[in-house]
Amino acid sequence: MSLTDILNTHRATLCQALAEEESERATALLSELRSADIAEILGAVLSEDEEPSRTLALMEYLPLERRASMLGHLPGDTQRVLAEAMSDERLLLTLEEMGSDERADLFNLLDEDRRQSLLRRMARRERQELKRLASYEEGTAGAIMTTDYVAIPSGMTVPQAMMRVRQTAPDAETVYQLYIIDGHGRLAGTLSLRQLMVAPPGEQIDELMIRDVIHTSVDEAQEEVARIVARYDLLALPVVDGDERLVGIVTHDDAMDVVESEATEDIHKGMSIGTLEGGVSRVPLWSLYRKRVTWLVLLVFANLFSGAGIAYFEETIAAQVALVFFLPLLIGSGGNAGAQAATLMVRGMATGDVGIKDWGKLMGREMLVAGSLGLTMALAVAPIGVMRGGEALALVVAMSMVTIVLFGSLLGMCLPFLLDHLGWDPATASAPLVTTLIDASGVLIYFGIATTILGT
Amino acid sequence: MSLTDILNTHRATLCQALAEEESERATALLSELRSADIAEILGAVLSEDEEPSRTLALMEYLPLERRASMLGHLPGDTQRVLAEAMSDERLLLTLEEMGSDERADLFNLLDEDRRQSLLRRMARRERQELKRLASYEEGTAGAIMTTDYVAIPSGMTVPQAMMRVRQTAPDAETVYQLYIIDGHGRLAGTLSLRQLMVAPPGEQIDELMIRDVIHTSVDEAQEEVARIVARYDLLALPVVDGDERLVGIVTHDDAMDVVESEATEDIHKGMSIGTLEGGVSRVPLWSLYRKRVTWLVLLVFANLFSGAGIAYFEETIAAQVALVFFLPLLIGSGGNAGAQAATLMVRGMATGDVGIKDWGKLMGREMLVAGSLGLTMALAVAPIGVMRGGEALALVVAMSMVTIVLFGSLLGMCLPFLLDHLGWDPATASAPLVTTLIDASGVLIYFGIATTILGT
Repeated sequence: MSLTDILNTHRATLCQALAEEESERATALLSELRSADIAEILGAVLSEDEEPSRTLALMEYLPLERRASMLGHLPGDTQRVLAEAMSDERLLLTLEEMGSDERADLFNLLDEDRRQSLLRRMARRERQELKRLASYEEGTAGAIMTTDYVAIPSGMTVPQAMMRVRQTAPDAETVYQLYIIDGHGRLAGTLSLRQLMVAPPGEQIDELMIRDVIHTSVDEAQEEVARIVARYDLLALPVVDGDERLVGIVTHDDAMDVVESEATEDIHKGMSIGTLEGGVSRVPLWSLYRKRVTWLVLLVFANLFSGAGIAYFEETIAAQVALVFFLPLLIGSGGNAGAQAATLMVRGMATGDVGIKDWGKLMGREMLVAGSLGLTMALAVAPIGVMRGGEALALVVAMSMVTIVLFGSLLGMCLPFLLDHLGWDPATASAPLVTTLIDASGVLIYFGIATTILGT
Repeated sequence: MSLTDILNTHRATLCQALAEEESERATALLSELRSADIAEILGAVLSEDEEPSRTLALMEYLPLERRASMLGHLPGDTQRVLAEAMSDERLLLTLEEMGSDERADLFNLLDEDRRQSLLRRMARRERQELKRLASYEEGTAGAIMTTDYVAIPSGMTVPQAMMRVRQTAPDAETVYQLYIIDGHGRLAGTLSLRQLMVAPPGEQIDELMIRDVIHTSVDEAQEEVARIVARYDLLALPVVDGDERLVGIVTHDDAMDVVESEATEDIHKGMSIGTLEGGVSRVPLWSLYRKRVTWLVLLVFANLFSGAGIAYFEETIAAQVALVFFLPLLIGSGGNAGAQAATLMVRGMATGDVGIKDWGKLMGREMLVAGSLGLTMALAVAPIGVMRGGEALALVVAMSMVTIVLFGSLLGMCLPFLLDHLGWDPATASAPLVTTLIDASGVLIYFGIATTILGT
């Protein structure tokens, strides 16, 4: 039985227990499930009902702490719907139990009135911390960091630090990496719990700590944060503000979520789809339309260049209608090869495998590979050229194939570098854009060669 | 200064120190750098030299342990080149210091003779463990797991377990999650170090441990392993064999690498590029050719269907050559919209956001979105139709646009589900395949509508 099936069974049991008001049965089942799984079950109940009352009733069976951690596993739009249906009091209790990063995320999803009303009911310190965390721009280190880390004041001994770890353990996101801060709150060093555990008790933390700490700043882009965590195999990456003061950490699990969501964003961008706020099955239709339409319409106009090319060669075409037979094939093949080349570069640049300095070398490699690809495809298509219109046509088609595939591949390869150089996102060199550009060039190349060789 | 620039400066300093035999300067600089960064520097030196002597000489400046950890950060092909140039003795020393998962990976890169020669020099237990780890199929949990975990025999008390953690600390990949095994080596429970640290000393581990452990089996696919680690925010995922015996763990950093490499694989598949063994800038040209050519040639033949459609409507075209003007535009637009729809589904299925059960709902959504996209694009192109050939042509072009975009989007949306249903990888529904299929259908739709309305 797959996980989805198991969760569906649990969902049915829970809904039945709710309907029959068997709270003990529901509580017992929920206590056996993990927060991520409960989130999936409740998310499904909510999307079935399209109104939150049953979902909220089920949430009442969860102890407060688990309710908070479950909520953090739900997609943003689902969190908002549930939070909007909760009373201020209930929501405040839940927010308090959430991790500081998830609390700020949920807070940012609420409307202004609700936020003000919640802030008024908070203690001063809490309010300030929430306002600060909620103020970081989305997609930055500040927006994904948590403030629940273990800070050790410089000057402590090993047993003192160990005591501090034990005290902080229930609230911290991770206790396995400790951050030593000086009198001004600046990040002075780091120490893993493993190192602390095997250290001689008499030792000072300042003697043991690693002073050259890998860290980042609050306004660093989240993909760069994830890249650092992955590169150095970190449990958590400390985040400092403009004055080098430690203000939070980004943990490995949040960095992993970033890798996943950035990959989705890149894959969508590769097809000229804008960033979706949520999964494709849940995002509003209007938003899905908007994220797809811009480039599609722009490319309609770009495609007019192909039309213009065809209009220019109208006489050649009228004299040899058989040429049209090979048009989709030639421009399609060039587009495919070019989109491959562009995608290889864009992904290489995103993972850091390819840099602008490699451009010359990669250009040489692509010429060899694309040349070979073009020749292979020309050989495949030549016999059909002979069949459809004799040897002269076959020669035109084969020559066009090599030229279009080679030109298209080089164009696809260079475009991401060019965009990057101009300060654009190289991922703008999407398959649709590249194939459209190659369509237009392919028309000119094909009919140009045809006019020259067939002399029409 | 970017990290790349900093590393380039360090590389120059190191190479100079080597040339001038200033071993102290080289050793001092290396001791300040992190393994991942040293790996990048040495990888650059090797690819510059194209022969390993200078890289190996630089490696001599590293203490054995760091040499081993640096080696694990290098790409597979680079590791192989260096290992092949090392003596058996030197390589054995290095292998011993590597993590068990990286040791097995490197071992698998060597040729058969070398492997036998290394195995003969190993102690019996080491040999057996290496052979076992090296035998798991690539892409499975067994192939990415490490055997360096902290196992606590069932029945221990809290202080005994703590002692065991301290003893294992230097060798284990993580000491922060402990695995309790019964007398038969079976996974009986788990406990975090955090829980152990706050437990009363008199307590038995068996009373504290969580018995319902999230785990996986050695032959589970690595992308599923990564999905579990991400879903439950795990530090490590225990791996069991067919008899439920604990045989290894997959740590969060290795799971993150899987997410990254699977995303790259999916992005490449989306353009019909096969899985590359290594980065695009380093992979051999022949291999790059081979991974791209198969689908490109297959699609040349698939594109003949477009040609056949054109041949069928040759009379219509000959009578109205102006129709050709809009051909690339119409089939290109349909291809773009269809590739978007396919990509949204393929990525949704890969992240678990979309399942086969959602098909009906998604079909309805896509009809609405694609219908609106088609109408918008038809409005954009209609005025040009009027300009090029009057109102009748504009009507043909606008109607074709709506039909092709709608049909193409639905085809692109359904294809991944169909492939999945047939037991294929949904990612086979790549942009090139989808656009080629839409090209052929678009030709029929366009000229079909043209023949009907213009009556030629």
